[in-house]
Amino acid sequence: MPTPPPMRIAAIGSFFAGGRTVTVGGQPPKLIEMSQDIPAYRFDPNGTYAINHTYVSYVLPVDTDRPPVVFVPGGGMTGACWESTPDGRPGWLTGFLRAGWPCYLIDNAGRGRAGWNCLLGSRSDEPVPRGAEECWTAFRIGPAGDYATREPFPGSMFPVGALPELVRQMVPRWTTTNELEVAALLAVVRRVGHCVLVGHSQGGGFAARVAQAAPHTVLATVLLEPHGLPERPTGPQLIVLGDNLEQSAVTNRLMPVWKTYRESGGLVDLLDLPGVGLRGNSHLPMADINSDTVASLIREWIEKTLSNIGQHRC
Amino acid sequence: MPTPPPMRIAAIGSFFAGGRTVTVGGQPPKLIEMSQDIPAYRFDPNGTYAINHTYVSYVLPVDTDRPPVVFVPGGGMTGACWESTPDGRPGWLTGFLRAGWPCYLIDNAGRGRAGWNCLLGSRSDEPVPRGAEECWTAFRIGPAGDYATREPFPGSMFPVGALPELVRQMVPRWTTTNELEVAALLAVVRRVGHCVLVGHSQGGGFAARVAQAAPHTVLATVLLEPHGLPERPTGPQLIVLGDNLEQSAVTNRLMPVWKTYRESGGLVDLLDLPGVGLRGNSHLPMADINSDTVASLIREWIEKTLSNIGQHRC
Repeated sequence: MPTPPPMRIAAIGSFFAGGRTVTVGGQPPKLIEMSQDIPAYRFDPNGTYAINHTYVSYVLPVDTDRPPVVFVPGGGMTGACWESTPDGRPGWLTGFLRAGWPCYLIDNAGRGRAGWNCLLGSRSDEPVPRGAEECWTAFRIGPAGDYATREPFPGSMFPVGALPELVRQMVPRWTTTNELEVAALLAVVRRVGHCVLVGHSQGGGFAARVAQAAPHTVLATVLLEPHGLPERPTGPQLIVLGDNLEQSAVTNRLMPVWKTYRESGGLVDLLDLPGVGLRGNSHLPMADINSDTVASLIREWIEKTLSNIGQHRC
Repeated sequence: MPTPPPMRIAAIGSFFAGGRTVTVGGQPPKLIEMSQDIPAYRFDPNGTYAINHTYVSYVLPVDTDRPPVVFVPGGGMTGACWESTPDGRPGWLTGFLRAGWPCYLIDNAGRGRAGWNCLLGSRSDEPVPRGAEECWTAFRIGPAGDYATREPFPGSMFPVGALPELVRQMVPRWTTTNELEVAALLAVVRRVGHCVLVGHSQGGGFAARVAQAAPHTVLATVLLEPHGLPERPTGPQLIVLGDNLEQSAVTNRLMPVWKTYRESGGLVDLLDLPGVGLRGNSHLPMADINSDTVASLIREWIEKTLSNIGQHRC
């Protein structure tokens, strides 16, 4: 394969959005060891802390009139899921950059580079880890319970040999932080301005809710097998579904939700991947072997949609 | 100021290195709520988990014969500290890319996108948060205890108005994970191959230890006010020191450590910033207003050093 031409990048960087400040008082200081050179460092837990913000990294191509795309990862995942596939191919970030889209990758509040609230006494829930067996089943790589065999669904597009690398993409999740994650994503959108949201799984629910909260800012929303959806869609939306949905307890519960959502009177299109001849996609189309093909179809929908609403040049 | 020319980028992505797999057994399953669409999700805590790996993002310019630079953040910080300054200027990442250096930014094991080990019963220490007051003092922005005034050291180069954004760069840290963070950084270096390490503070100690463990792979090491140093340096090293060192309890403890290290028989150069006419640098030269100037001096040292050891073209 010939080497692709260089990406022409105007800027690369990151920032934080949303969240709040909390003050801790009345706690005794504590001696901690930072390294053998600084033993017995006096740590004073009292002070002013930042919590519940979102981390946003961005890469902006030159000479483009396309609006930014903000990528929202699913539960227990970070922006890393868009950077490279688990088997080391270029992720959707590269494909969208090469097609001229300014890209913003976020870590939702409470995860990854957004940090998490570890202040004493401030949290009632326990962090939830995600291991290989749950990845196998929840991401629909193979039949529930068949992790031990490593035998994926017939024709699966997930690069099954790279499952250990996928597991390393997981970070601890919380079960009580959905509202503050949505609030922080809304702060991202308010700062970025007119944009397209691409949300995966739990991140799809967050994206749809932010589209509802900022209808004049979010131009279009792409939802990859989303959950946690609001009652009705706002603005043009695309639901993207993979294969073997009926084999999973989770997607069996979600299929009627998606159907109701689509029929609730909004502008919701469906990209049913098996229906357009793409078989074997897991819950992680950005990780699958045909990830670039799926991304192309999504970009086609975004372009057509923005062109329809006259927002292509903004 | 004229717009700089585009960066010509060959590849952008991320991967994970090091760490290990642990198996959890004998725990009862638990019902959790992932969203209102998936209430009472059955989470089985038993399974196979990945812990203690490092997250590595990379951006590779085209047409370069320079070796990669691996940036190692300090305690409680992530790779975000090299992407943008707290006041939103381009970070060292951009400067090194524009100068033709392939860049690797890591999140040390246990932080940021590397995740952290939240498995039940697996950890004995408590996470340590970092707030505005500790940033003020530990990063030598102003006199210890003067956070309330926001009056920095006279001539301080830290963009003091952006202190809240700096605080958002902080993530919880652990006091018992230094050894596994060094092990995971060594795994990064073994995968990247011949490279230059740039380590900040605690990350400087990690970098110096990895240079000792992989002397034929690490070509040169830059240490920004490091701590946790090994007994002796291995390979060419540069210690970079800012201003007002004598005003800080921590650097007062470190100054004799750096002196002993430099005199221990290795190839250690010193970049004393006030000594070369740059006054007012904090503990965070990559965040300071003159960050680009400091980075230029560091790149000059790297180039001269690699040229001396005939490794410039590798």
